[in-house]
Amino acid sequence: MFKYIKNEIKLIREKDPSIKSNIEALLHPTFTIKIYYRISHYFYKKGHYTIARFIQNRGKRKTGIEIHPGATIGKNFFIDHGVGIVIGETTIIGDNVMMFQGATLGTAGKEKGKRHPTVGNNVLIGANAVVLGNLKIGDNARVGAGAVVVHDVKSNTTVTGVPAKVVRDYNKK
Amino acid sequence: MFKYIKNEIKLIREKDPSIKSNIEALLHPTFTIKIYYRISHYFYKKGHYTIARFIQNRGKRKTGIEIHPGATIGKNFFIDHGVGIVIGETTIIGDNVMMFQGATLGTAGKEKGKRHPTVGNNVLIGANAVVLGNLKIGDNARVGAGAVVVHDVKSNTTVTGVPAKVVRDYNKK
Amino acid sequence: MFKYIKNEIKLIREKDPSIKSNIEALLHPTFTIKIYYRISHYFYKKGHYTIARFIQNRGKRKTGIEIHPGATIGKNFFIDHGVGIVIGETTIIGDNVMMFQGATLGTAGKEKGKRHPTVGNNVLIGANAVVLGNLKIGDNARVGAGAVVVHDVKSNTTVTGVPAKVVRDYNKK
Repeated sequence: MFKYIKNEIKLIREKDPSIKSNIEALLHPTFTIKIYYRISHYFYKKGHYTIARFIQNRGKRKTGIEIHPGATIGKNFFIDHGVGIVIGETTIIGDNVMMFQGATLGTAGKEKGKRHPTVGNNVLIGANAVVLGNLKIGDNARVGAGAVVVHDVKSNTTVTGVPAKVVRDYNKK
Repeated sequence: MFKYIKNEIKLIREKDPSIKSNIEALLHPTFTIKIYYRISHYFYKKGHYTIARFIQNRGKRKTGIEIHPGATIGKNFFIDHGVGIVIGETTIIGDNVMMFQGATLGTAGKEKGKRHPTVGNNVLIGANAVVLGNLKIGDNARVGAGAVVVHDVKSNTTVTGVPAKVVRDYNKK
Repeated sequence: MFKYIKNEIKLIREKDPSIKSNIEALLHPTFTIKIYYRISHYFYKKGHYTIARFIQNRGKRKTGIEIHPGATIGKNFFIDHGVGIVIGETTIIGDNVMMFQGATLGTAGKEKGKRHPTVGNNVLIGANAVVLGNLKIGDNARVGAGAVVVHDVKSNTTVTGVPAKVVRDYNKK
């Protein structure tokens, strides 16, 4: 438990230069929402969906961030600011992912079952970006602010725009 | 009253596949914000504007959704997630409309009187879409995620982009 | 103090036609968040960063608006609706600036020190617009809804789109 908090503080101080002390890091939305998510995820896995959603709603009210208790999230997930973030039930997020305020990992509306994105490792998802449907965001990809993504994004690329197009491809040299 | 709640639960379970029980549906933001809206709308129509806004603010704090008490909203209005949604005072919304998080039905800033959109029946407004001014969104239209709409949208069309352009027109076959 | 409140009410009633009385103006998010900002800014300048962030968080929970206590803000700053607004630590905002819901004055992620925008006088920043990095928005500029700005914006121009381009230039006649 103590180790978990220590790691979280380290992560937050590393990623957010506006944080000036360990105590201040505990007031960061990343710290708050991840505790709510972990508790709600625990109840969700046990099949207590209503309790899970109740806890999700409490976290949403405190932070403006809505992570569905069913989502799967890797290590060192970092959110900045975060008001308006939505992460859907069948989303899978890898390690070291950063996500900014207003960004959505949502559904395109027609799918059943796995209907939210699968996000690789070291991905950055910019402010107000919208990623919709059961698609893949490859490792090290960057989704620009305000981008709308409705197709897979290849690893090591940067996509921007509405709809999102590749503007940088680090696979080619 | 009981019938109203029953209908709401039916609507929410129909539209949101992540809801797993009737009790969980009562925790959905659609259910919460529509109760706040109905009460604030009642006071607004009686001319108690300050009370109406007070109730609007309570609902906004709980859900992140801001529906002006003066807005006119049809049957089976459904909101998903909803943080960041803004619906202006002179907005008119038809029946069976869906609206996602971060979407705005706002004003272009120069108009007086009716200065917000009129939205038809069966319209879908995607996440982070912004619709500005006293314009019309026709029946069965779809406004894509992140679209910025500043002109009328014809019935049976899909618009996307900044500024929004028609990408699909179901009137032509 | 009384004069401050009087000015705020005047500003809010001038800018928002949906406000119908002075009392109602006190329920406007502009009024609420600016009080939180002023208190948090006071503690920030004294070096009490954790207290400052605690107050920032309270204001964010009440309004959905996140203004970093370190930001510098001019006279007659007006926010409408405001859920999802983010204003970063080293942002400088001039006089008579308007900002709408979902808009971000943020950082591009690679900079140190001054890493947020400098916004001139009489600037308007539309709903869900994202302005990133230590760049300049000139006097009287307008940033359209949903625009993503990553370069300087000249005075007396209007920019829109992702990425933002000049669509009107009042310097040329």
